[in-house]
Amino acid sequence: MKKFNPEGHTTHQFDIELNDVKHKVMNMGGLVESMVDNGLEALINLDAELGNQVSEDDHRANQFELDIDEDCTRILARRQPAASDLRLVLTIIKTISDLERIGDEAEKLGRISIKLARGQDEVPSYHKDLRHLGEHVKIMLREALDAFTRMDVEAAFRTAAKDEAIDQEYANFSRLMISHMMENPRYVSHALDMSWCARSLERIADHACNICEYVIYLVEGKDIRHANLDEMRKKLL
Amino acid sequence: MKKFNPEGHTTHQFDIELNDVKHKVMNMGGLVESMVDNGLEALINLDAELGNQVSEDDHRANQFELDIDEDCTRILARRQPAASDLRLVLTIIKTISDLERIGDEAEKLGRISIKLARGQDEVPSYHKDLRHLGEHVKIMLREALDAFTRMDVEAAFRTAAKDEAIDQEYANFSRLMISHMMENPRYVSHALDMSWCARSLERIADHACNICEYVIYLVEGKDIRHANLDEMRKKLL
Repeated sequence: MKKFNPEGHTTHQFDIELNDVKHKVMNMGGLVESMVDNGLEALINLDAELGNQVSEDDHRANQFELDIDEDCTRILARRQPAASDLRLVLTIIKTISDLERIGDEAEKLGRISIKLARGQDEVPSYHKDLRHLGEHVKIMLREALDAFTRMDVEAAFRTAAKDEAIDQEYANFSRLMISHMMENPRYVSHALDMSWCARSLERIADHACNICEYVIYLVEGKDIRHANLDEMRKKLL
Repeated sequence: MKKFNPEGHTTHQFDIELNDVKHKVMNMGGLVESMVDNGLEALINLDAELGNQVSEDDHRANQFELDIDEDCTRILARRQPAASDLRLVLTIIKTISDLERIGDEAEKLGRISIKLARGQDEVPSYHKDLRHLGEHVKIMLREALDAFTRMDVEAAFRTAAKDEAIDQEYANFSRLMISHMMENPRYVSHALDMSWCARSLERIADHACNICEYVIYLVEGKDIRHANLDEMRKKLL
């Protein structure tokens, strides 16, 4: 397994600072992971209270982003890191932007669950399909965060490759919603809400994929965004 | 007008490098601006050729992002900038990520225009409303890029404040699409496509808003993301 070996540092204090900021990123990752979990649960159980919780957690995720960003700027200014340390700091700056956006998407799930919990209309339940998609997205996010924590480039490739299957599952769900809307105009609004939720889940998978690409960049020093994943994997591993 | 005054540099070469990378960002901004323009035109005129053009331009936008990112990493490693120079480089790294995502959203407009151009169904035209939203989004993007070019914090505040009106316009358009879907199941698929396009336009405005926030951060040294815009404006200006 190919792993990331950080530069040897001249000062012990710098190691502490880098570890500290990495630790914060992991905490932020744990937070947005629980937000996705709760957003999905709130939606499936029409639990407005849990939906509200996700909104509140979003403020914490935003604060994490600002804090970590500030830490990174300070490290760049004071420590002037080079080589892999510099890449680590830049990777963290990008990763937290994706984590913050995952939090935003989770918050949308929470918001829609609050709206649906208020509604009294009898509507068909698409929970089974949505949960299916949601579980796959949650696994992908978990694995992307693990790959980041362990700086494991193989795991990052493996996880990024799952995005295609999720895109397919999302497309199938969207088609199902369209056919429901066509069959019964009463379901339009509800099926549309479900489509937005599925879209949010699909976006979360995209952000997880981005995080995998940053891990690969960090370990390999090669920016694989917008490249063919299979080709890059063959070239690098 | 409050403007950005870069640090005095010890080397002339550094000035050239910074200007060079800023220039590239402006070129990338011009490219994604034209992509939004073409995506909207392709959609309204069902012009598949223009839609394809946007897809091709998206590769160029992606390449811009990779190039500029590399430039920024090199500058950080070699020049170890401090204070406002460091903020400029970090701002550029974030700005190009938003520009790349604007390109992605424009590409979605292009893709939907290609799909619609193939269709033979008689469907209602929502072009007037979509164009209205699109024109407002284009103005906002233009102003955000201008604020970036001139590092004009007042213009950045003014432009960011427009996001709320665009959100409202987007919500109105979405409601209109829902009512059309309910009235006639035959329009579901088309009205849904239009909803996605409107969503893409709304997302482009969000990214323009982010760019404004980066300009404010750069000039004021204050990160105003997730803060109340009005309060920050009063405090800073």
